[in-house]
Amino acid sequence: MSTTVTMTMATQDPSHQSDRVAAASIDRQKLMDDIHHTAQWGEGQRWGDAPTEIGMARLALSDADKLVRDWFIKEVKKYGCKVHVDAMGNIFAIRPGRKEGHPTFMGSHLDTQPAGGRYDGILGVLAGVSALRTLHESGIETEYPVGVVDWTNEEGARFPQCMMASAVWAGVTDVNNTYQIADIDDANATVRSELERIGYLGPTPAHYTATPMAAHFELHIEQGPILEASRQCIGAVEGVQASKWFTITVGGRDSHTGATNFENRSDALLTSAQMILRSHQVATEFSSLASTGLLSLEPGSTNTVPGVVTFSLDLRSSEDKKIEEMESILRRDFESIAKGESVGTVTAGCTRGRGCTVSWKVDSHAKVANFDKECIECIEKGSETLFGKKAASLTRRMYSGAGHDSVHTSTRVPTAMIFVPCREGITHNPTEYCSPEDCANGAQVLLNAVLRYDHLRAVKASS
Amino acid sequence: MSTTVTMTMATQDPSHQSDRVAAASIDRQKLMDDIHHTAQWGEGQRWGDAPTEIGMARLALSDADKLVRDWFIKEVKKYGCKVHVDAMGNIFAIRPGRKEGHPTFMGSHLDTQPAGGRYDGILGVLAGVSALRTLHESGIETEYPVGVVDWTNEEGARFPQCMMASAVWAGVTDVNNTYQIADIDDANATVRSELERIGYLGPTPAHYTATPMAAHFELHIEQGPILEASRQCIGAVEGVQASKWFTITVGGRDSHTGATNFENRSDALLTSAQMILRSHQVATEFSSLASTGLLSLEPGSTNTVPGVVTFSLDLRSSEDKKIEEMESILRRDFESIAKGESVGTVTAGCTRGRGCTVSWKVDSHAKVANFDKECIECIEKGSETLFGKKAASLTRRMYSGAGHDSVHTSTRVPTAMIFVPCREGITHNPTEYCSPEDCANGAQVLLNAVLRYDHLRAVKASS
Repeated sequence: MSTTVTMTMATQDPSHQSDRVAAASIDRQKLMDDIHHTAQWGEGQRWGDAPTEIGMARLALSDADKLVRDWFIKEVKKYGCKVHVDAMGNIFAIRPGRKEGHPTFMGSHLDTQPAGGRYDGILGVLAGVSALRTLHESGIETEYPVGVVDWTNEEGARFPQCMMASAVWAGVTDVNNTYQIADIDDANATVRSELERIGYLGPTPAHYTATPMAAHFELHIEQGPILEASRQCIGAVEGVQASKWFTITVGGRDSHTGATNFENRSDALLTSAQMILRSHQVATEFSSLASTGLLSLEPGSTNTVPGVVTFSLDLRSSEDKKIEEMESILRRDFESIAKGESVGTVTAGCTRGRGCTVSWKVDSHAKVANFDKECIECIEKGSETLFGKKAASLTRRMYSGAGHDSVHTSTRVPTAMIFVPCREGITHNPTEYCSPEDCANGAQVLLNAVLRYDHLRAVKASS
Repeated sequence: MSTTVTMTMATQDPSHQSDRVAAASIDRQKLMDDIHHTAQWGEGQRWGDAPTEIGMARLALSDADKLVRDWFIKEVKKYGCKVHVDAMGNIFAIRPGRKEGHPTFMGSHLDTQPAGGRYDGILGVLAGVSALRTLHESGIETEYPVGVVDWTNEEGARFPQCMMASAVWAGVTDVNNTYQIADIDDANATVRSELERIGYLGPTPAHYTATPMAAHFELHIEQGPILEASRQCIGAVEGVQASKWFTITVGGRDSHTGATNFENRSDALLTSAQMILRSHQVATEFSSLASTGLLSLEPGSTNTVPGVVTFSLDLRSSEDKKIEEMESILRRDFESIAKGESVGTVTAGCTRGRGCTVSWKVDSHAKVANFDKECIECIEKGSETLFGKKAASLTRRMYSGAGHDSVHTSTRVPTAMIFVPCREGITHNPTEYCSPEDCANGAQVLLNAVLRYDHLRAVKASS
């Protein structure tokens, strides 16, 4: 065990501490060893020849999930942490600081998609473990406690509710309702029964009042191509985009493709193609996103004009107002397109048919999650500490397109996220990949940000 | 049995015979009785409360098909016909004329789709039976023989080759290869084994040289909405449109809908929507048809941009050259759309992404079948005989969008088709409906056209 050195950043200008903070350096090799060592629990699909070129299939509350949880607890205890588990199986590891107070948490999740990779969620938790290791081995005593949390079932792959347990912690959803959620393949295996079975139904209430936090920092792979495309290393995530999901049903009439002229058709697929194109145009105008990932049609034969088409519409924006405006425009325009009325370029050059019907169903709606300004600044400063003058060009502020446990923590405590590039933006896939450099950069910025936040708390308390 | 009256139209101007031809009148009630009586063999889905509101499921060479064939032979023999069956089970009923010569045939098919109606094919054969009945009961002797043919497996529903046995008759396909075609649900039941089983493997070679025809007239429901929409009664069908079928595969890249900005997407579905819209625009420009009836995508989730989309493209035109030109334009434009290049209005207002690949597979190609001018004129004159001065507004020349046995007969003998309206253009559906008026109008025009053609042959022979 290393000698403990009390950090004295709290009473000094942090810029004078750059040498000492730089010394609190993440051990890249140990971080990568942890990632690949723990991948033994829940091995997924092999995609390459190298020993680590295997994806992950560690579903929440499975035997594999229990084994990696056991490892996590054993590991963090080496670094002076106390560990408690709450009623949702969330595991909180807390390393004491010089003073009493709510811990500053680093956190993410250890569960994966059934055909997932080695980085989504895992990197955020194991970077937290690396940070604790660095603090311990460097003998650094923080001003306040620092912790790492493993949130249960972020993926929602086995029990179909994404960010499940952080939602309960934040009071967004009810613990007893959540207990009833069943395995998608086994109605007898519920969240509660599986928590009990693997021994992770903890005694602490799953609530932010029972495990309070000073802040929540989450390191995650970007899951998109933006950092890679711009050759940047760190995303200082300002929040999570709003998303609103719809199922759109276009009703036309089946008819023979050879015997029915355009004027007499009610072509549900052509109409849907016009709507999909229109949604893309509108999202382009709003610097937002519109996507269709599902589309099915009936009856489905080469020589039958489809009578019914159902497709998904996923709208995303960094502004709630834009979601509202886009929805409003698209409801109006889809109605016009269905009727065969002229709607800009998407109906130009087309033959007007007999028209279709269109109906909308709202499937989900998540408003923008805005992260904490001070936390975001700590991340940017943490990047400066790592990269020096290059930090400005290597770091970008960005919004997350995907949801994360930080969405829920942000409703209760100061929160921000750090993104690192992942190869070609590929995620939820065995080939998901984040380079050792990027993993270590992210972990280092995470540690730097946490130390800075801890320092700023002490500065505020003493002023 | 009625007294036979020799028709003497051959040596006189046919316009002087209008009274006598008009007297050769189809018995509407008996035609409808036959349609509904024979529907007992192969009853399909009930769709209404009335006794006749039941569809048909009379698959080729099934027990039900045998029973209706038996009825057909028994019925036509009442009207003085000799019947022979060829090696494909095609049944030829021939009523002698005053002179020897190839018979003028009326024909269609008695098999149906598994969820078919009471008119597709059936009307054409039973109108022929009604025509024979009228000739017989009116005691009319034609100049040359007149016949009715029931072609085997036009639908291709059980043995997957449409217009199967007329193709063999025409020498388009080989009899022995055709014998090997198996039931789609039972590999042990082949065309040959089922012909043998139901007793319809006839001794006559299935070939136009063994059963020659002077002409082939086919009455059929339109299977489209054009006559109904234009409130017209008779289509004088000039031919069958060319059709070319393709499978188009668009290759993009799966990506997260929230985390991937438009610039970094290879969105296979958006690209496909642009292509489908473009195909419609080009077909509109060419007064032709383009349709997509099948579309599938991968991987298929609301928050994943589709990485692969496969869709069908069905091009139709009454001119072969237009099919070629449309294909050429679409191959060029789909390539540009895939690359993200600007293609008129279908890419306007869109964000250019990283591009996709596109590949084409030709699934089938049928050139235009052009029917015989004299036969078409006989149909138009037959309509004039029925409707008088109103015929011009009630009759239209048109192309068939769907294939029929007449496509094959037209390669060997003068051929034309008569279309009658069907409700809302619905076909291959239990609710398929043709009113008694329209059935009788079609049968009457069929008889009139056959009598006129028979007359013209005699005029030519004597000139």
